[in-house]
Amino acid sequence: DVVLINAFEVPDGQREAAIAAWEVSRDFLAEQPGYISTVLHASLSPEARFQLVNVARWESAEAFEAAIAEMRAAGASPQIEGLGINPALYTEIRRD
Amino acid sequence: DVVLINAFEVPDGQREAAIAAWEVSRDFLAEQPGYISTVLHASLSPEARFQLVNVARWESAEAFEAAIAEMRAAGASPQIEGLGINPALYTEIRRD
Repeated sequence: DVVLINAFEVPDGQREAAIAAWEVSRDFLAEQPGYISTVLHASLSPEARFQLVNVARWESAEAFEAAIAEMRAAGASPQIEGLGINPALYTEIRRD
Repeated sequence: DVVLINAFEVPDGQREAAIAAWEVSRDFLAEQPGYISTVLHASLSPEARFQLVNVARWESAEAFEAAIAEMRAAGASPQIEGLGINPALYTEIRRD
């Protein structure tokens, strides 16, 4: 598997809007081949640099990239003014 | 539970040193009350803004903060020149 981690910098007052937009994308991506699971995290502190962090599992980098391309083509990723995104693919190197 | 997510900005050529330093801290923290688990992720791409992302579970925010204070007092968190850290506590708000 690969792990998609995306740390969102959310403009003040936009947390609910960002979650709603994330859900539209999640609903689309969850139907794509190679999708395994996803967990969206919300910071306990409003001061946190990244108010939302998504951690999702995919069968492969290729599956993820194909799904993202499909999502963009389908317009299934609503844009939020000023939302900072930092998506990248990872592999687990230490677990205990 | 609470989830500690820490996205590391790693200076060029310092990934192995950052992992080694992380292991010293992990070994200390894993012995502290309230520790549950941790997974360290390494980016597939060297271009990723955050080369390393730690996702750890703790029984409570208080347990985590006490453990961090103990770690600092014990000097169990080796410093890496130029390492950017972004630790924050999170709760899961969407899971599927």
